[in-house]
Amino acid sequence: MPSDFEKLYKGCEENPEDFNAWVYLLQYVEQENILSAVRKSFDLFFLRYPYCYGYWKKYADIEKKHGNIQVAEEVYRRGLQAVPLSVDLWLHYLTFIKENSDLTDPETEGRIRASYEHSVLGAGTDFRSDRLWESYITWETEQQKLANVTAIYDRILGIPTQLYSQHFQKFKDHVQNNNPKHFLSEEEFVQLRVELSKASLSAIVGEDGEKHPEEELPPGTEDLADPAKRVTEIENMRHKVIEVRQEVFNHNEHEVSKRWAFEEGIKRPYFHVKALEKTQLSNWKDYLDFEMENGTPERVVVLFERCLVACALYEEFWIKYAKYLEGFSSEHVRHVYKKACDTHLPRKPNIHLLWAAFEEQQGNTDEARNILKLLEARVPGLAMPRLRRVSMERRHGNLDEAERLLREAMDLANNATESSFYAVKLARLLLKVQKSQSKARKVLLEAIEKDVTNSKLYLNVLELEFSGDVIQNQTEILACFDRALASPMPLETRILFSQRKVEFLEDFGSDINVLVAAYREQQKLEDENESTKRKAENGYDSAQEPDAKRQRVDDAATAAAAMADPQANSAAYNYNWYQVGLTNI
Amino acid sequence: MPSDFEKLYKGCEENPEDFNAWVYLLQYVEQENILSAVRKSFDLFFLRYPYCYGYWKKYADIEKKHGNIQVAEEVYRRGLQAVPLSVDLWLHYLTFIKENSDLTDPETEGRIRASYEHSVLGAGTDFRSDRLWESYITWETEQQKLANVTAIYDRILGIPTQLYSQHFQKFKDHVQNNNPKHFLSEEEFVQLRVELSKASLSAIVGEDGEKHPEEELPPGTEDLADPAKRVTEIENMRHKVIEVRQEVFNHNEHEVSKRWAFEEGIKRPYFHVKALEKTQLSNWKDYLDFEMENGTPERVVVLFERCLVACALYEEFWIKYAKYLEGFSSEHVRHVYKKACDTHLPRKPNIHLLWAAFEEQQGNTDEARNILKLLEARVPGLAMPRLRRVSMERRHGNLDEAERLLREAMDLANNATESSFYAVKLARLLLKVQKSQSKARKVLLEAIEKDVTNSKLYLNVLELEFSGDVIQNQTEILACFDRALASPMPLETRILFSQRKVEFLEDFGSDINVLVAAYREQQKLEDENESTKRKAENGYDSAQEPDAKRQRVDDAATAAAAMADPQANSAAYNYNWYQVGLTNI
Repeated sequence: MPSDFEKLYKGCEENPEDFNAWVYLLQYVEQENILSAVRKSFDLFFLRYPYCYGYWKKYADIEKKHGNIQVAEEVYRRGLQAVPLSVDLWLHYLTFIKENSDLTDPETEGRIRASYEHSVLGAGTDFRSDRLWESYITWETEQQKLANVTAIYDRILGIPTQLYSQHFQKFKDHVQNNNPKHFLSEEEFVQLRVELSKASLSAIVGEDGEKHPEEELPPGTEDLADPAKRVTEIENMRHKVIEVRQEVFNHNEHEVSKRWAFEEGIKRPYFHVKALEKTQLSNWKDYLDFEMENGTPERVVVLFERCLVACALYEEFWIKYAKYLEGFSSEHVRHVYKKACDTHLPRKPNIHLLWAAFEEQQGNTDEARNILKLLEARVPGLAMPRLRRVSMERRHGNLDEAERLLREAMDLANNATESSFYAVKLARLLLKVQKSQSKARKVLLEAIEKDVTNSKLYLNVLELEFSGDVIQNQTEILACFDRALASPMPLETRILFSQRKVEFLEDFGSDINVLVAAYREQQKLEDENESTKRKAENGYDSAQEPDAKRQRVDDAATAAAAMADPQANSAAYNYNWYQVGLTNI
Repeated sequence: MPSDFEKLYKGCEENPEDFNAWVYLLQYVEQENILSAVRKSFDLFFLRYPYCYGYWKKYADIEKKHGNIQVAEEVYRRGLQAVPLSVDLWLHYLTFIKENSDLTDPETEGRIRASYEHSVLGAGTDFRSDRLWESYITWETEQQKLANVTAIYDRILGIPTQLYSQHFQKFKDHVQNNNPKHFLSEEEFVQLRVELSKASLSAIVGEDGEKHPEEELPPGTEDLADPAKRVTEIENMRHKVIEVRQEVFNHNEHEVSKRWAFEEGIKRPYFHVKALEKTQLSNWKDYLDFEMENGTPERVVVLFERCLVACALYEEFWIKYAKYLEGFSSEHVRHVYKKACDTHLPRKPNIHLLWAAFEEQQGNTDEARNILKLLEARVPGLAMPRLRRVSMERRHGNLDEAERLLREAMDLANNATESSFYAVKLARLLLKVQKSQSKARKVLLEAIEKDVTNSKLYLNVLELEFSGDVIQNQTEILACFDRALASPMPLETRILFSQRKVEFLEDFGSDINVLVAAYREQQKLEDENESTKRKAENGYDSAQEPDAKRQRVDDAATAAAAMADPQANSAAYNYNWYQVGLTNI
């Protein structure tokens, strides 16, 4: 293999999100035309981007060029399995099949018909499947199987598609331009002949006529003897055939009309790595909601499948699909999650977490565990899978494992902030689940040693002490405040702690002197802050603007109005009064 | 009284902050010249604005115009008691005294001198008191009491004032242009004569000379016999007198230089209702800090008194003064608080609260109680005094009274929000001090009934339930969440509760199904929110701008980087992960 290839290939392997790199690699291997490199590249590409139908064709073409017709057909089959809703890929495949069939072989016609059948089963309910149906009709017409053509029309006329009206027009031409005995099966023809004969008789002799018209009719599809009657029968048959389809057409037209705006809104029905516009996404969403409310489960599933070609990179639609399927089949749900996580969105956390939750709900704890580990491996450093693992172990009573996972996360953390984040979670687990205040306190105090400016840690120690008896714990609680106040945290953070200390003493303190001292301590910090700000201001625009705040001479009116928004009170005495009582100490 | 007067007077009575209304009223009564109206108006005015020296003069002038000389003098005395640092008012008063004295009365000179003495005792240490001193000197000069003039110079030369240098110059002129026996007291003169004589002798015969110069000197202030010696003595005396003062001057000049910049910074030394510029306020602050560090207590007190004329409406300076005085005299501290609260800042909450705290510290609980009640009466609807009353009763063990006060506040509240604010405080008191979870819960739940959209109340119930055993209390905790989610709170608030519910279940829930259901509930709320927003947007600029958020095709990179700022995680699974653990459930 050329070293250029190795380089390009490795680039794609390492960074599969870079779609341009793939385009370049696939162009390169096509040009270089080394079959092993082509196969290796395309196979890897399709693991991640199976919905790119054009590349399946390209792959098949290369195999064909190398004379590997069987392999080419196999490529098509793989492609059609990956993206069975691709009308284009089906059409390419059918062309390929027809070009590479032995027309002298009597089985060929049947094989091609089977492929057409396969194609319309796969993609024929798509709103934009008209070209496929037209191709099928054309081919049967070429085979002069006019009854088959009628049977195909009978199917497409009941399916809401873009060209529904054109199909009906063409169907009428097909009926007008051909003889009923050719475009109807013998059975249908005979049945219709009898019906028409009965109807014409009853019109003459009344309902209770004794005559048996069958006896006078020629056998099978033979023409009537009387030329006038013959012409009349043909015309009546045509009329009847169309009349019956007219009802189907009307109903279908109604269905089409309900979906027309949604379908109009779909500007890009195929897969592309580029983002979709917001309006298109909301159109898909609204369409799905409409179909879930109004359509059959089959239609809903087809619409989801169509949507998830166009929106394969949007996890919300995969999630919606999985949720919809929950009412039907766990296996199908699992399949959707797997396809989403393993193929299209290997690094999207949310859908992995939902998949894991789903498996846990199904009782597959090990599977859930594996999915979470997989996500940790796919997106290193992400907190969510780790926390979900902790949560799951806790739910299953494995408290030691839950603790171990959090401690491991603290050790593996990339920095102090990250480690502190897990320390808070661990302390919470120890305090509220394991009910060990001392272990929880130890975790937090050790975390503070490593991350002295992290206000969350100080707040959590405070909360821990506060959760007990605030009168008895007063010394410990004040010590917490003082630890925070003596810390190297930014002045403004320390001011917040100081305010909370004052509020705590106001609400629970036993000594007015301690309260007054705390209040003065706070004033001091605030003055310090004020003078720092003043200095910073003087740096550039100095005393030009008299500070609006200072301009207020008597804020009695403000104070009186303060209750309207009690948070405003804090300005007057620096309380956090209306901060959620307990939760903020 | 004219009805116009009643109207104007009532307006001022009801809204004493409106200084312009006062100006108008005082102008009006002066013009109408009805003495009873004048007196009623000025007397009321000075209760609130005693520092307006100009109005004291005006008031005295009106009385004088009506021939009430005694009353006018009484007005001056009242004014000078209110604002003893006003050099201007002293000068007006002295002029008044001199104009209205019987110069033939032998006691008049003494009375005027006593008034001058009174004035320099009151205002003579002010940096800007020069005009007063000069007036005093001029008057004594006019009385031809040159020794008195020297004595006045001896005082002013030691006081740092603006015109310190000019005084010294004038003093030297005073010495040069007059005879020592006139500008020195007899005692000083004799003492100096002996000193000079001794010095000249010892220069001739050495230290141990036997001669007694006194014997050769004339008695008292009689001139020396020898004309040459007489001239020499006078020159020597002048030299000596100035030499001694030169040292005082030098020291005073040094003191002045340290204060010069501060004094320069005082652009408005008198009282005015208009706000002071920020730079002036900080100049006062810095000056006070300087003086407290370097000056004598007397100087500090004078500076505070000066400052509190100019800055009478700024409580920070009153507070600073009270704090400074704590080291000296409780009585003085109390006086400062009283003056600030009862005269200048009757509606400033902060200083009232500090006064109450001071009295409580002094053991005067009843006094503290009264101050807080006073503040409640002066600024109705303010929360702080009520909370401080609660806090004080709690500190003194009167828990029932503390509870009663909060319940009363709830009943008296102007609206549901205000009532809920007290409910939260009451619940906190009941839970953490009275240790009654059930009483606390009852208070909060009843508050919710009256204020169904108040998120703080829901959070506090939540916190209350969470403070117990989260595993056993799970049903109650989930009920709290569901109460909030079913409430008529705004959608965005409910989304926050929903997020917290998910996080609670993740951290403490026992059933994955409940977690998944909660997660879906949250997604539903968020979708609802999204679609509301979308509708709002479509109202004006619709689909023109494809939403940046939606444009992201795969946020794996974002997710990987999320740990850098763990709060960013919330986007991915909507957790409040890094919200202070316990405190936020």
